[in-house]
Amino acid sequence: MNYYSEKDIRDIVAKVVNSSLGAAPAAESRPKAADSKEGILVEVSARHVHLTVEDVEKLFGKGYRLTPKKMLSQPGEFLSNERVKLVTDKGFMQNVAVLGPERKRTQVELSATDAKTLGIKIPVRLSGDLDGSGDMLIIGKEGCIKAKECAIIAQTHIHMTTEDAQVYQVKDGQRMSVQLASDRPVVLENVIARVKDKSKAFLAMHIDFDEANAACVNDGTKAFIVKRW
Amino acid sequence: MNYYSEKDIRDIVAKVVNSSLGAAPAAESRPKAADSKEGILVEVSARHVHLTVEDVEKLFGKGYRLTPKKMLSQPGEFLSNERVKLVTDKGFMQNVAVLGPERKRTQVELSATDAKTLGIKIPVRLSGDLDGSGDMLIIGKEGCIKAKECAIIAQTHIHMTTEDAQVYQVKDGQRMSVQLASDRPVVLENVIARVKDKSKAFLAMHIDFDEANAACVNDGTKAFIVKRW
Repeated sequence: MNYYSEKDIRDIVAKVVNSSLGAAPAAESRPKAADSKEGILVEVSARHVHLTVEDVEKLFGKGYRLTPKKMLSQPGEFLSNERVKLVTDKGFMQNVAVLGPERKRTQVELSATDAKTLGIKIPVRLSGDLDGSGDMLIIGKEGCIKAKECAIIAQTHIHMTTEDAQVYQVKDGQRMSVQLASDRPVVLENVIARVKDKSKAFLAMHIDFDEANAACVNDGTKAFIVKRW
Repeated sequence: MNYYSEKDIRDIVAKVVNSSLGAAPAAESRPKAADSKEGILVEVSARHVHLTVEDVEKLFGKGYRLTPKKMLSQPGEFLSNERVKLVTDKGFMQNVAVLGPERKRTQVELSATDAKTLGIKIPVRLSGDLDGSGDMLIIGKEGCIKAKECAIIAQTHIHMTTEDAQVYQVKDGQRMSVQLASDRPVVLENVIARVKDKSKAFLAMHIDFDEANAACVNDGTKAFIVKRW
């Protein structure tokens, strides 16, 4: 059984990579979508930030772009070399990962524990659903932004291809109950299917630090869809 | 929605009290056992230590006994005024709560996150089931003990009276799946019923910090037994 520290999370992020930058995961490394009884890969997301091009320039300098350090499992997504500080009235966090590439809207994804450390109340939301979410000061090497409505606790989700969705009998946006089949098994009841074309998706369940530790998830833990709502 | 910091946990522990020290919770404050559809009270346990009389004396001085600060929901159990440090080869924790009264065996209950912070791997176990569990250096005001096989992650459990057990149709030691009916609902699948005479038990589910944050549990969150194994 393993427990997750921040270092572990960074190591896990580093592990979920491809050898060549920019390439989608090799087909043979994907779980066999044809067998829905096979458990789904579980990936643990540490706190991280997505930034717009404008905000990258404000934080790191005019003309600056995020530089890939490691590719992540979702095609095209990467852990960048850049790091930021997050600051609120009541707390701060240093050395927070920035994921690339740049997005249309700046977004900060935290665990409930992180939110408490920062002294803010933020909603559980799907990525991109930011209206009414939390505010945050983000500090980079060359500047600072006051990001309004950017901070959420990511609603737990499973990335899947349209082919995977057929196999698992779910649709994009569908709510599912999903078991983390660990030594301390837990069913998360409000997990959303995020279905994309296979060029843009890789079958994986994304959970946060709190969920990983509650279930004592380890590297080999698989997820199983137990109910479709 | 609330998230739990260590201060919150202390506040919650303080809240789950009786007005008079030593008294069992007033009958009218208990959930109505007669209606099993009514959710069960959820209490969040922060890391804490139970000590033998011998270890209390080693840590706090010859003849010393734990002194109650607040009574807890389980009859006779209390949060003491005493605090200890926990030390391992890889980390330490200060200001850790000691619960009373003294027990037959010294026991340290941690979350998976705590265990990672301390750099130890410890099993998920019911209270009292300590063979092969983790070792720990415990430091008090007047001394220090090297406690062998004392540290566990508490297996999630529901305390109930024999009367409650009849209503909920479970037996002592029975495994249950229990839903935390929060804004981010989660089912814990390996929860154990701990049934005692009504003079010794108060109906309440005990979860740890990781589970509370994974489910975004708040003060009003109730638990529902959804499966008996």
